[in-house]
Amino acid sequence: MILSGPMESQAPVAPRLQVKLPIEIRFAETDAMGVVHHSNYIIWFEAARIAWLEAAGSSYAAIARDGNHFAVTALHVDYRRTCRFGESIYVAVALTLLRSRQLAFDYEVRRRDDDALLASARSEHVCVDLEGRVARIPETVLERLQQVGLRS
Amino acid sequence: MILSGPMESQAPVAPRLQVKLPIEIRFAETDAMGVVHHSNYIIWFEAARIAWLEAAGSSYAAIARDGNHFAVTALHVDYRRTCRFGESIYVAVALTLLRSRQLAFDYEVRRRDDDALLASARSEHVCVDLEGRVARIPETVLERLQQVGLRS
Amino acid sequence: MILSGPMESQAPVAPRLQVKLPIEIRFAETDAMGVVHHSNYIIWFEAARIAWLEAAGSSYAAIARDGNHFAVTALHVDYRRTCRFGESIYVAVALTLLRSRQLAFDYEVRRRDDDALLASARSEHVCVDLEGRVARIPETVLERLQQVGLRS
Amino acid sequence: MILSGPMESQAPVAPRLQVKLPIEIRFAETDAMGVVHHSNYIIWFEAARIAWLEAAGSSYAAIARDGNHFAVTALHVDYRRTCRFGESIYVAVALTLLRSRQLAFDYEVRRRDDDALLASARSEHVCVDLEGRVARIPETVLERLQQVGLRS
Repeated sequence: MILSGPMESQAPVAPRLQVKLPIEIRFAETDAMGVVHHSNYIIWFEAARIAWLEAAGSSYAAIARDGNHFAVTALHVDYRRTCRFGESIYVAVALTLLRSRQLAFDYEVRRRDDDALLASARSEHVCVDLEGRVARIPETVLERLQQVGLRS
Repeated sequence: MILSGPMESQAPVAPRLQVKLPIEIRFAETDAMGVVHHSNYIIWFEAARIAWLEAAGSSYAAIARDGNHFAVTALHVDYRRTCRFGESIYVAVALTLLRSRQLAFDYEVRRRDDDALLASARSEHVCVDLEGRVARIPETVLERLQQVGLRS
Repeated sequence: MILSGPMESQAPVAPRLQVKLPIEIRFAETDAMGVVHHSNYIIWFEAARIAWLEAAGSSYAAIARDGNHFAVTALHVDYRRTCRFGESIYVAVALTLLRSRQLAFDYEVRRRDDDALLASARSEHVCVDLEGRVARIPETVLERLQQVGLRS
Repeated sequence: MILSGPMESQAPVAPRLQVKLPIEIRFAETDAMGVVHHSNYIIWFEAARIAWLEAAGSSYAAIARDGNHFAVTALHVDYRRTCRFGESIYVAVALTLLRSRQLAFDYEVRRRDDDALLASARSEHVCVDLEGRVARIPETVLERLQQVGLRS
């Protein structure tokens, strides 16, 4: 499946709904530097945007069952501070762009006790069908996301 | 440990040594979309830059044993086409920036049979010591990387 | 480090404290069969025994900070039913053996809505120090585990 | 899908074809104990049996494309010695049981330089179709495996 292509030209949506997903750091997520391996943040971001969709009233499991996926087309991560097993952290996530076939999310990973910023990130997605072709976001999902994702 | 900070101002190094690491896609790396989950590319990039360092005569295992790590400070990935279990792919990697405390690598994931580009990426790193403090890249390593990483 | 050796001959401890850890299935944990890849259960088991230790008043992060780890020496898993992204599950865990240097945990993975058994498992562990040598479980930890792990 | 059920009663097949798969330990596979996290062995075992099937002339990618999977029903692992990033290891794998709907593989993880045994394991599998129902192993695959898996 071909994922790339020029981003559509509408203005980005101002975020409204923000979800904070607490993360229990798993020992398996650490590496021999003694800190969480950077690849695990990518999986946390996915968990966070799925929690966001759930909070927005659009279960990703239901979207997938209905034959669509939000394939990742780009990922940008800035790692500021490492974190360790035993630390309490969360991922804050918000929808920052919404088009008929595309969306993007912004993320921040923060420590729970002092809110220190550990990482910030952005992921871009295109809606695809089961054959991997670019598809329109299902109408009911799009409307739902526009409602909660547009600043009131 | 604090990883961020302004990048130093020297000009980037033109790449010379390029390494192509064949990847055997693991079934465990696929997801319910039927394709490789995007988080695994991050692990392939790491394997590729470690292969590059090995090819450059600087074993990362030795660097780590001597008390240094190249912590990831930023990651940028563009996913163009998905790939599936059973496909033959490789990661091409080159050093694209080298400073006394920082380096960066560029990556391309390509199919082996038709060289189709699946993803391109860049990772930025800072050298840290065992306590996670920013440190100079060990002199012998730096010299080695300058030799093979500078265009002749 | 050498992990093996004959198990010590004391009778196994009857379990008392049981902990049920809810698991949010991550999309990254699925595979191209459409179900959760079997390797992820191993990571859930670890998360469950760490939650058990926490509930027992013995933080694994503190044990590790004090210089000990419970290295896995054996693993036995029976997979009964697969599970999918979107399903609600939990891991029930209990301590089933406790010696001066060894412990073992039993696990069951169950669906939340009908309690259907998805998998059962057992992990065996030996206490090691930072050099990986077999070591006695720290006295305060051992006492704590004996109290909550012995049937009243 | 329901994976369990009594094993069929035929005698196990004596192994003939043995495959040794070299493993490049990935830094991402290490944990904060400084060694490879035990969950990664499970993924190496899968890579090893897929390499075995390939060597036996039965590509797992082709089996999957034709609509079958070898779901894991049981896993037994004995961890003897830990291993670290930078060490050279391999997994030796052989088919040890073959029935019309079931198979099992044995594994050994060994260091390359001194052949020291790091772990031994066994995995049991049932053939399933795309709906996850237990199915006969495709006839051509079964014949192929009987030929290479039976002691000459």
